[in-house]
Amino acid sequence: MKRYAIIGTGALGGYYGGLLARAGCDVHFLMRSDALHARQHGLQVDSKNGDFLLSNVHAYATPDEMPPCDFIIVALKSTQNASLASLISPIIHSESYAIVLQNGLHVEANAEAVVGKGRVLGGCCFLCSNKIGPGHIRHLDYGNILMGSYRGLDGRSSAVPDSVFDEVSKDFSKAGVPIEATDNLQKARWKKLMWNIPFNGLSVILNAATDELMKHPASRGLAEATMRDVLRSARACGEDISDEHVDTMMDHTDRMVPYDSSMRLDYLAGRPMEIDAIFTNPLRAAQDAGFAAPMIDVLHRQLRFLEAKRTQS
Amino acid sequence: MKRYAIIGTGALGGYYGGLLARAGCDVHFLMRSDALHARQHGLQVDSKNGDFLLSNVHAYATPDEMPPCDFIIVALKSTQNASLASLISPIIHSESYAIVLQNGLHVEANAEAVVGKGRVLGGCCFLCSNKIGPGHIRHLDYGNILMGSYRGLDGRSSAVPDSVFDEVSKDFSKAGVPIEATDNLQKARWKKLMWNIPFNGLSVILNAATDELMKHPASRGLAEATMRDVLRSARACGEDISDEHVDTMMDHTDRMVPYDSSMRLDYLAGRPMEIDAIFTNPLRAAQDAGFAAPMIDVLHRQLRFLEAKRTQS
Repeated sequence: MKRYAIIGTGALGGYYGGLLARAGCDVHFLMRSDALHARQHGLQVDSKNGDFLLSNVHAYATPDEMPPCDFIIVALKSTQNASLASLISPIIHSESYAIVLQNGLHVEANAEAVVGKGRVLGGCCFLCSNKIGPGHIRHLDYGNILMGSYRGLDGRSSAVPDSVFDEVSKDFSKAGVPIEATDNLQKARWKKLMWNIPFNGLSVILNAATDELMKHPASRGLAEATMRDVLRSARACGEDISDEHVDTMMDHTDRMVPYDSSMRLDYLAGRPMEIDAIFTNPLRAAQDAGFAAPMIDVLHRQLRFLEAKRTQS
Repeated sequence: MKRYAIIGTGALGGYYGGLLARAGCDVHFLMRSDALHARQHGLQVDSKNGDFLLSNVHAYATPDEMPPCDFIIVALKSTQNASLASLISPIIHSESYAIVLQNGLHVEANAEAVVGKGRVLGGCCFLCSNKIGPGHIRHLDYGNILMGSYRGLDGRSSAVPDSVFDEVSKDFSKAGVPIEATDNLQKARWKKLMWNIPFNGLSVILNAATDELMKHPASRGLAEATMRDVLRSARACGEDISDEHVDTMMDHTDRMVPYDSSMRLDYLAGRPMEIDAIFTNPLRAAQDAGFAAPMIDVLHRQLRFLEAKRTQS
């Protein structure tokens, strides 16, 4: 049986890790200051699919206490990726793989630098959940993952062997988490960015929830125009996404319940925003490929200003 | 002696009209609800160049009470231009000229529709003043005007005769207001927009004064990039403005005292913002000329959203 590490036991890591452990997988949770609480009281997951308590949790405050693991699930906010190497290095062996479940573009690069090329899977998660207390997760909806091999900044790293992907997929499936395979992770990342860039950005800059942005013609038009800027960026980077995906995303957002984007929640709570992963990296990729991406550029600079202003005050 | 009408006796109209009247010109002020107060107490101008009280003011609550005037000075906020025809029509004769002292592009079009082609001067005013009470103006600094003939939406209207311009210029000069002539009003308008578009827009959207915007690299870079977008728009419209003007404007803004743009003051006070004149008209002109002006486009839509949101709440 393979051994899983959950790096970051928050809304996402706590949920997926909890499901894997409940299904009988060998799961080890990096939980920092929550570790003691989880050892004493377990990990509680309240889910629309049924609540459960894992009373016996392998919970650790630091990675140095953890055993070597085969599958390293990176479930931190991408704002912490700069310190990822120090968290992963103590727990890997020569055959470890990383599974990066973060939003944004090239969020896998830090993990790849540690575990090596051809050893990283990336996953786009469609999940609504929150951490509501130490060792306490509330799962609201969804949870499926679109997963594929990370091929490196230059797109030339080899793919993760199919046998490895299948093993991960089987464990998640046993845990009740549907994993869909993609042989083009970057395309999946860009498609998700077509929502995240306009709605995360505008919700922070214009101080509005998604339904407000969709309601007013000016912001609705701006969201759609920004989405097309992301589409053109993706195409400049060689990803063939159809124009219809814009309509699909707009329709989808029209039908969503009023929703605060994760970036807006982070901003309002004074937490770091995932600007690097969701804005800086895609913008740089587009511009390196020869497309100026002016709308992403404006939103990116506005977010940087708001971040700097908040930090100072 | 020619007769002047001041349409809108606020910070700008009250100041210039007051100076003209003090210098002996025949000036008639449209003052709406302030008219009675001004008839009883006069028009008070507190200026860095010396305070004065005009005790005998031709003040009117409605244009219907006013005599026919030769020179119609339009000093309203451009947000009121849709109702300009009804204000001007009662007081013009067949030889009247309009002098439009507003910010933005094609703000003269409404006046031209009333007084006729070849009968409109436009002025870019460099003025810091406020209206601080009924019939009470405080002039803080500057006051010079760059003035030229408005040549119509298509640029083909004939120019105002030199003799008319000279007469206006002489009156203003006698009143202590330096007027510089330009034979290219549109170019002057665009040069002023190179400041107004970035700093009016960003100060509202990012809730910041100009010095804050200049201090942070992200917003400073965005202001400069937006300025270049305005420069490219102007060039698309045939106005030959040099790249150096961007540096001049940035240097100038660096040396300014911390300053709240007029649009931010309007926004914070719940007044209408001059979005049409400063954003919509230049954006349309650029796009009609084949340049997408993406940065102006984003800021414009963001302002429209903030305006709509404020109106609803």
